[in-house]
Amino acid sequence: MDQNCTFILPHFKLESGITLQSVNVAFKTWGTLNAERNNVMLICHPFTGSADVYKWQAHRVPPPIQAVHSSFFLFVRWSSLMGCGKAFDHTRFFIFCANDLGSPFGSTSPISTDPSTGKAYGPKFPATTIRDDVRLHKLVLDHLGITSIAVAIGGSMGGMTVLEWQLCFPGFVHRAIPMATCAKQSAWCIGQGELKRQIIRLDPAFQGGYYAANRPPTQGLATARMVGLMSYQSPDSFEDRFGRRVQEEPAPHAQQAIQLSTEEDTEYPFYATQSYLRAKGASFSNVFDANCYLHIIRKMDTHDITRDRVPLSSPVLGSHNPDPDAALTALLATLPPRPLIISISSDILCPPHEQALLAQNIPEAELVVIESMAGHDGFLVEHERINEAVVQYLEREFPELYSD
Amino acid sequence: MDQNCTFILPHFKLESGITLQSVNVAFKTWGTLNAERNNVMLICHPFTGSADVYKWQAHRVPPPIQAVHSSFFLFVRWSSLMGCGKAFDHTRFFIFCANDLGSPFGSTSPISTDPSTGKAYGPKFPATTIRDDVRLHKLVLDHLGITSIAVAIGGSMGGMTVLEWQLCFPGFVHRAIPMATCAKQSAWCIGQGELKRQIIRLDPAFQGGYYAANRPPTQGLATARMVGLMSYQSPDSFEDRFGRRVQEEPAPHAQQAIQLSTEEDTEYPFYATQSYLRAKGASFSNVFDANCYLHIIRKMDTHDITRDRVPLSSPVLGSHNPDPDAALTALLATLPPRPLIISISSDILCPPHEQALLAQNIPEAELVVIESMAGHDGFLVEHERINEAVVQYLEREFPELYSD
Repeated sequence: MDQNCTFILPHFKLESGITLQSVNVAFKTWGTLNAERNNVMLICHPFTGSADVYKWQAHRVPPPIQAVHSSFFLFVRWSSLMGCGKAFDHTRFFIFCANDLGSPFGSTSPISTDPSTGKAYGPKFPATTIRDDVRLHKLVLDHLGITSIAVAIGGSMGGMTVLEWQLCFPGFVHRAIPMATCAKQSAWCIGQGELKRQIIRLDPAFQGGYYAANRPPTQGLATARMVGLMSYQSPDSFEDRFGRRVQEEPAPHAQQAIQLSTEEDTEYPFYATQSYLRAKGASFSNVFDANCYLHIIRKMDTHDITRDRVPLSSPVLGSHNPDPDAALTALLATLPPRPLIISISSDILCPPHEQALLAQNIPEAELVVIESMAGHDGFLVEHERINEAVVQYLEREFPELYSD
Repeated sequence: MDQNCTFILPHFKLESGITLQSVNVAFKTWGTLNAERNNVMLICHPFTGSADVYKWQAHRVPPPIQAVHSSFFLFVRWSSLMGCGKAFDHTRFFIFCANDLGSPFGSTSPISTDPSTGKAYGPKFPATTIRDDVRLHKLVLDHLGITSIAVAIGGSMGGMTVLEWQLCFPGFVHRAIPMATCAKQSAWCIGQGELKRQIIRLDPAFQGGYYAANRPPTQGLATARMVGLMSYQSPDSFEDRFGRRVQEEPAPHAQQAIQLSTEEDTEYPFYATQSYLRAKGASFSNVFDANCYLHIIRKMDTHDITRDRVPLSSPVLGSHNPDPDAALTALLATLPPRPLIISISSDILCPPHEQALLAQNIPEAELVVIESMAGHDGFLVEHERINEAVVQYLEREFPELYSD
């Protein structure tokens, strides 16, 4: 039913003008393409997935087959959305998901070998954009004989990718379900990325990105991930789960990768919040690569659907427009009608007003705001309500696929 | 009119049981104590103040008189609240503000000399609590012949201190104006502190806190400050000021203390948000001490007005209660009536619901929510509206001081 595949291109020219040689695209499919070829569901993955990725620990430079599996950790978190009668229904749709450039889970990235040197790219891996991923994945779809996408779905960076699909290939994607996402990376999100960059650079093991595979900057990466976790979840969610509860001792994971200055820590209570953050940070640093992490943050920083699409925009990768609001609303009005846009009420990273802006300007958009204290991560954890909204939407928009 | 002073005690026993020897308290007063001694205004300072503190750069271990001045950087930001006819009116009130333990601006702290070793305390400086500051500053007031406080005012940590004054010395403080503060440090705030701790520890210059005075962990401290700035201001405020604007080159300050990996940075646009964060982080790391910073974070983590005040609470510095909500509301109901409580609508660090909780439970409380995108920092920058609310309140509550 499901297939893990790698598509290999001899070369691919990036938006920056740089050409990557010998490019891998890890992808996975579920279900069967129908005779009309009108049942393709495209799923676009977010930056980093879920806690459940932790089952694939300790292969920072993974062998190919594991790499392909790992690229779909998204589905571990979204697994309850998959199956007959659910949002991602392989009995009705041919589902396709490909791993983005720069991600350490199978597609070409900083941990891949640079054919020109025989060594890993590391920090020399060239900048990529979400548009690069869209154009690259389109080549894979072309190869598979896919001529249109019925519906594209994604949250966070995946939602950015959904919007870019519609703009890079007008008419190719019929319906879209962007969740917890935005038309352009905000100043606050750019600031979050800057924090993570500075933190990873602080780790002496980082070595400007030229760290040895067996001596990666785990402390810096773990700490950067902790910063991320604070923004992916809501203050209310932290309060609800941890409050001021004190732990007797750090969770086992916490001691693995994060140094404990026992001199300081023994004098003070050790709060459950600290234990949680350390454990999650440490676990993440065991499965993700620091150069890949920095690369994808930079990729998201370039996200602005108006970039180079409206008059007077700035050079590639930058984006500054004298009247960005007008350019943005005008561009959104050109998108295919009737998307389903999903917000999480407590999202502080991509707050609901960013999705409201999409819904106000894309023709006939439907906006569903899920009341939840889960924060940005709500798009991954509010399974039931997302499942319900997506299934209702698909039944309405694709009656021919639900006619049985 | 105004006086800079230092009060010296031979010893002071902390809440932890540890006794500090030769304790300094830097404080400042404005105006004159009246014959009835009923015109004392107590101002409690926040953790760190404003951008304007930067004028006192480059004296990380300051000589005594500069230290005293530096402790009142708060007033640089709040200077427009000071003066005849304004909120802090020295012609009506005798105004008192003292520097907290652990702050690098004049009171005893990690940068002070430990009399038992002849060296700076550094990371060996013992834990202190907000209650320690209250009890210590009360000794200074006793020495000045002050028998009651008409009104205590403070924002953020200063607001925590205001609440503790009322609970440590029942009946001593008549009216209170806590702003942008909370009854207990939240899980999310504890998490923010944990991020800052881990970041400073990442800096190789930190040396477990035993850094040389001329080689402090400026990069770690600057990066921790950047994390703070992201939480002190609101996402909307970042968007409004910076958006996706690109800078030609980093601001001058930014290059001082924060290393730029030019290899990476030259390939990507340099956003105004990044420039702002780096400049502010670097400037801060020139005027604050890393051990002091870590110390005060820990002090705030211990903030919970129910700690050791209700049955079944846990040992000193920890706090966990089987029914914390009931204990908290019961305790708030014992506070003096008629406080003025001020919220900033976009505060993500001490969100408005935390002040609403105070207002719902303290008898006859007045809650003013200032609609502003300034975030937590709103209590420092929304001068006009704070001035108006405070003056109105003071005129109503202290007619005898406004009878002229």
